[in-house]
Amino acid sequence: MGEFVICGHVLNPASARHVTMARQVLHVGADGVIVASHAAGTAAATAVLDDAARRGVPVHELAPAQLLMPGFADLHVHAPQWPQMGRALDLPLREWLEQRTFPLEARFADPAFAAPVYEQMVTTLLANGTTTAVFFATIHEESSLTLARICLRHGLRAHVGLVAMDDPALCPADYRNPSIAQALAASSRFIHAVRALPGNENALVRPMVTPRFIPACTDGLLHGLGALAAAEGCMIQTHCSESDWEHDYVRQRMGVNDTVALDRFGLLRRGTVLAHSCFMTAEDMALVHARGAAIAHCPLSNAYFAGAVLPLRQAWQAGVHVGLGTDISGGYSPSVAVNAAMAVTAARMLDTGNDPALPAATRGRTDARLTFAEGLWLATRGGTDALGITAGQLAPGMAFDAIMVDRAAPGSNIMLPPAGDPDHTAEDIAQQILCNMGRPNIRTVWVAGRRVHGAETP
Amino acid sequence: MGEFVICGHVLNPASARHVTMARQVLHVGADGVIVASHAAGTAAATAVLDDAARRGVPVHELAPAQLLMPGFADLHVHAPQWPQMGRALDLPLREWLEQRTFPLEARFADPAFAAPVYEQMVTTLLANGTTTAVFFATIHEESSLTLARICLRHGLRAHVGLVAMDDPALCPADYRNPSIAQALAASSRFIHAVRALPGNENALVRPMVTPRFIPACTDGLLHGLGALAAAEGCMIQTHCSESDWEHDYVRQRMGVNDTVALDRFGLLRRGTVLAHSCFMTAEDMALVHARGAAIAHCPLSNAYFAGAVLPLRQAWQAGVHVGLGTDISGGYSPSVAVNAAMAVTAARMLDTGNDPALPAATRGRTDARLTFAEGLWLATRGGTDALGITAGQLAPGMAFDAIMVDRAAPGSNIMLPPAGDPDHTAEDIAQQILCNMGRPNIRTVWVAGRRVHGAETP
Repeated sequence: MGEFVICGHVLNPASARHVTMARQVLHVGADGVIVASHAAGTAAATAVLDDAARRGVPVHELAPAQLLMPGFADLHVHAPQWPQMGRALDLPLREWLEQRTFPLEARFADPAFAAPVYEQMVTTLLANGTTTAVFFATIHEESSLTLARICLRHGLRAHVGLVAMDDPALCPADYRNPSIAQALAASSRFIHAVRALPGNENALVRPMVTPRFIPACTDGLLHGLGALAAAEGCMIQTHCSESDWEHDYVRQRMGVNDTVALDRFGLLRRGTVLAHSCFMTAEDMALVHARGAAIAHCPLSNAYFAGAVLPLRQAWQAGVHVGLGTDISGGYSPSVAVNAAMAVTAARMLDTGNDPALPAATRGRTDARLTFAEGLWLATRGGTDALGITAGQLAPGMAFDAIMVDRAAPGSNIMLPPAGDPDHTAEDIAQQILCNMGRPNIRTVWVAGRRVHGAETP
Repeated sequence: MGEFVICGHVLNPASARHVTMARQVLHVGADGVIVASHAAGTAAATAVLDDAARRGVPVHELAPAQLLMPGFADLHVHAPQWPQMGRALDLPLREWLEQRTFPLEARFADPAFAAPVYEQMVTTLLANGTTTAVFFATIHEESSLTLARICLRHGLRAHVGLVAMDDPALCPADYRNPSIAQALAASSRFIHAVRALPGNENALVRPMVTPRFIPACTDGLLHGLGALAAAEGCMIQTHCSESDWEHDYVRQRMGVNDTVALDRFGLLRRGTVLAHSCFMTAEDMALVHARGAAIAHCPLSNAYFAGAVLPLRQAWQAGVHVGLGTDISGGYSPSVAVNAAMAVTAARMLDTGNDPALPAATRGRTDARLTFAEGLWLATRGGTDALGITAGQLAPGMAFDAIMVDRAAPGSNIMLPPAGDPDHTAEDIAQQILCNMGRPNIRTVWVAGRRVHGAETP
């Protein structure tokens, strides 16, 4: 992998509120970091091109209907549920867990079962434009390490968590940690093993301390995992205030909400990713903000398993980091774009309400809407920011984690303007990408400057 | 076009509740109607194959990961809003209409502008698996006839409506019928012209009487259109009880709900398609049932412009025909499958409610859920049934309006079972198709036995 230059339209989430589109000349260094980005036609851009020509650095020129944009960050994926994606959502939660999900996850005790599943998942996520992913694996060390290796081999920026779950009241006998000590030792070994993987010197793949959720873990395990994360300087992921059942369970057992309980166990820190968080109160959000932790908003999954929509704008107003999660297979789509569009749709439905039998004035709650520019931000920089990763915008100093979108690809549902009309606005193009982009549009994907999917451009 | 035989898996919506999957031998006659469908391996199936071999009738054999299913019916498309698909949904309704939608529709006064837009739309809908579509065109006769001709040329089963809208209070000066008499004469001419199109002897493309919606039409126009539809035996489409604003406007002007007003104008009959209908009461539904009219449910659009979710199960319980509409461009997706998945998701959100600040017991309304089998029915037979079309199931006597889905296509997001596992259930495959099918999976599409998109199978 060497340095290169790309010239073409760049769609960039400049801020949560504002998206820009302009022709740029982008210089990517041999380390995969964007060295420079200049408006095409300027003296600075010409200098980059001249220098590239002189030094024999490859220059790629995009076609007019092609564009570069940051890759997507998916903050919540249950990797072992991949074979169940797009299935079984008609089942009630208990049946879904006990008859389908736990037995499926238990099969990952066999690394030979895990390897092809994880291989297909990682390549499919990359093909959908995901450049950063956060995975719950299973309780099985070897399979989970296999996942880390596959991410590394394919170049997916990833966080992989060995799941810890030891409470016999909720976890099935054939799929739980036999003891607190075993779970803690396994998590510790896993952290070291991931960090020591050959080829992982730049920490492209990172371990995460991963208590499944409070109901699946004993107090002792939660306490031990908090201490382990602190000792290892390791990031953390778990589920938080997802549904009525889970939220009420934690309140009954702990006497407090999830956030306060997690905080007492040392599990609420900068670098903690809290999936769902629909039922967080204003106090919860203030605490999460104070600790620097983040929410993985999973709007599709929440429609099926949470019974509520995260009041995302309220979380932003409290200063909380928020990104998106597909929550495969509680969510049915591997596409962060689909989930970003659903985040905007769900926010509208929270804002206006659903039930036509109620009067308009009391049907919804106000100030919940999101724009598509905000959806794009959530899908990109919102996620990387939550993880403390220097990527998610195509700007100097950021890693070149990017997608080349071909709006004119055969098989595209993205419509270009009628002949003779000016091109769409940046906002409209952002919306089209979230709403109508399909795999045919995703031509090339890079992580840290390495081509990880698709054709060499253009 | 001649007769042919196809052997392979057939996914069939047997009823609203039940979907089946089996290997079948399907015999399609030269008239595009399914002559026979027999379970593969039976004596009857063998007889069909032997007969085909003897007479030189082509036989297509699908691969194991391929399947046939009925094509989709899209009951509500604003054809002139095609260039706006996936754009502008952040705008408030009034701005969306006045600054974007009406000016765009007004451009269809020029048939040279209309032709390439409609050409692209029809081919894209076919490529997404839509085999039956119901279009609002514009008030312009020549462009709307162009749309009918393009549907006919490409073989899309279509209903095309010349829009009627004459009320100066709502319609802009440059985009409305100048008088009742002009609007009625134009609608009458259009009905005759569509029916007389060369090549339309089998009425593949049908006209529809199309009052935009009550607020855009004077009483005189609505009355005249009702009489015209009766005189011509012509089907009808309009919007009905879509949003608080529209519903309240009609109640104020007419003193009754949309359905009662439409009925008084003679506009509520078997063959009438009522878009949206979110705010129908139980009495409205009973009236719609009594008249045999149908609802075009547009779940994506409703999230943005209706502010409520249609209580679809209630409509079914009242015996009302219900199909799906993309409502391009109020809805952002050209895919009926995407809208079917959204119908299931929105029904869940209506059932459980959205707002986590409300107690679970009062957050939603019960008995609103839909299964994915029901979503598939809505997307196929629900729609054709609403229109009185003998298609939508792959069974003898039905027109062969079908999609060949390749679950193993390159670029697929539909996941096959892990090696060695049995195949998924029919319900799971139906869900995968609604949730994860993309254009790469849609290999071939037929309408009335004619191949209208994609490769000759397999």
